[in-house]
Amino acid sequence: MREKAHVREVGPRDGLQMVGTILPTERKLAWCRRVVAAGIHEIEVTSFVPPKLIPQFGDAEEVARGAMAIAGCRPSALVPNLRGAERAFALGVPQVNYVLSASEQHNLANVRRTTEQSLEDFARIVAARDQRVGAPIALGAGIATAFGCTISGAVSNSRVVEIAGRLAEMGADEITIADTVGYGHPRQVQALMKEVIAAVGQVPVACHFHDTRGLGLANVAAALDAGVRAFDASVAGLGGCPFAPGATGNIDTEDTVFLLEQLGFDTGADVEALVAFRREVETWLPGERFSGAIARAGLPKTYHAHTTAAV
Amino acid sequence: MREKAHVREVGPRDGLQMVGTILPTERKLAWCRRVVAAGIHEIEVTSFVPPKLIPQFGDAEEVARGAMAIAGCRPSALVPNLRGAERAFALGVPQVNYVLSASEQHNLANVRRTTEQSLEDFARIVAARDQRVGAPIALGAGIATAFGCTISGAVSNSRVVEIAGRLAEMGADEITIADTVGYGHPRQVQALMKEVIAAVGQVPVACHFHDTRGLGLANVAAALDAGVRAFDASVAGLGGCPFAPGATGNIDTEDTVFLLEQLGFDTGADVEALVAFRREVETWLPGERFSGAIARAGLPKTYHAHTTAAV
Repeated sequence: MREKAHVREVGPRDGLQMVGTILPTERKLAWCRRVVAAGIHEIEVTSFVPPKLIPQFGDAEEVARGAMAIAGCRPSALVPNLRGAERAFALGVPQVNYVLSASEQHNLANVRRTTEQSLEDFARIVAARDQRVGAPIALGAGIATAFGCTISGAVSNSRVVEIAGRLAEMGADEITIADTVGYGHPRQVQALMKEVIAAVGQVPVACHFHDTRGLGLANVAAALDAGVRAFDASVAGLGGCPFAPGATGNIDTEDTVFLLEQLGFDTGADVEALVAFRREVETWLPGERFSGAIARAGLPKTYHAHTTAAV
Repeated sequence: MREKAHVREVGPRDGLQMVGTILPTERKLAWCRRVVAAGIHEIEVTSFVPPKLIPQFGDAEEVARGAMAIAGCRPSALVPNLRGAERAFALGVPQVNYVLSASEQHNLANVRRTTEQSLEDFARIVAARDQRVGAPIALGAGIATAFGCTISGAVSNSRVVEIAGRLAEMGADEITIADTVGYGHPRQVQALMKEVIAAVGQVPVACHFHDTRGLGLANVAAALDAGVRAFDASVAGLGGCPFAPGATGNIDTEDTVFLLEQLGFDTGADVEALVAFRREVETWLPGERFSGAIARAGLPKTYHAHTTAAV
């Protein structure tokens, strides 16, 4: 029995946030179906932001509702604030992810609030969730710019650990540590992730890496060493951050699954099915930059997929 | 005092082996000068193969002689056989690197000899070196396809370890373990490199990674964990292997230095000077595919170069 590692597909959310094409709702749902068929069940499917701010997510309700109807799909949705959370709660999205920045200046630039104010907002979101009647909803909490910030530079581990501890205490069901701008390196990842895991008790910890400076997969390996078993990734390596110029996107889903399987973990995912789907995504998004090594070079002859893509 | 890690620039040899442009000798020597000025002193400058086989290396003698005249440059040259080694010895190139494949089929395809025959050739090269009068010449021995082979598939660690042990015993002054076709992954790298280091006594061990499947830098981090402190890399990520279709080249020199410095090692190299030189190389080689993340995204604000580029 191999140990499990989880890949959460964030392409329909983080991957589409910066692209030039507004993808039709039906294609976003096809994204979910195809990824589920390839063995990945957790998908961040949309963001409940004001449509005027990011038109790509104008169909957030339709996408969330559609994804919830896909057998084997466990959709989550990003929310920037209580208002967004209430929209997601109203639909009963099984996991709602809130994000704030460890970098004060990044948080101000991103949501015009201090990190402390964003923590207070999270408390309100937890309260709203707890008062809700109906199927339980998990609350994820992400800490952006946890490895440094293009605006303010270094972010101390102690600040990230403190925020993670407070989010866990407040009621987060999962903590995601995000290298929003691609500043993290393996030594830093290993040290910070060990500290975070120690600080949040039983709350599961995930990592969200961007491959901006080529270290995305090296950082996955380092986080695994520290005990992390869940990673965000995006088909075709899509994604970006408005404050990270020249950035590439999230770590590539196909490559991440490949690495995890090579390291002996069971992701349940089928790399070849993911690559086949990625070829379609490339045709959907003309003019975008895609990344990913397996799509270019193919699997090694020595790769044995121990996987089933059964839902 | 930070621990030292060594980057050997192999761009003028491995990097140019597959490109469409035959680079003028003067540019190959400029490559050496610029890399030395950026703080990298070990450079594999050419290959003593028959010019009919690889016209790029028709100027091997001129390049080797020119590189030996550059202050601060410690050139090495690849040789495929005794004949090539004798050409390099005649010039007094300070390090001569011989390479054979752990994969029998790759070795046959590459040099039409069995691995055992290639080991016998190495013994002859050592003998020729030892009979030579003049300044001492170091003999490097590389083991290609050490992590697997596109032709024959898996290569066992025990075979690589046995070959490494024999090369060390025969008189190799350095052993380089090469992932010629980009099959290696961090767990495998860590395990194999620990075994190789244990098997070769005091002989220094280097790694030669290609970034074919996106794991080049993750493999560097894993090799460091196993105790390796020397890595081959190529400016702009150039390089390839005729038996590795779809491959990208060597790990990128700029990114490798960046990773090593981030991990706390002292490479002596200046990433920004390397990136500036890389921009020129891109203009020298129209139509080639370049890789490398730092050249695209820039250094993080939090990167502190502790380096001097003094010769």
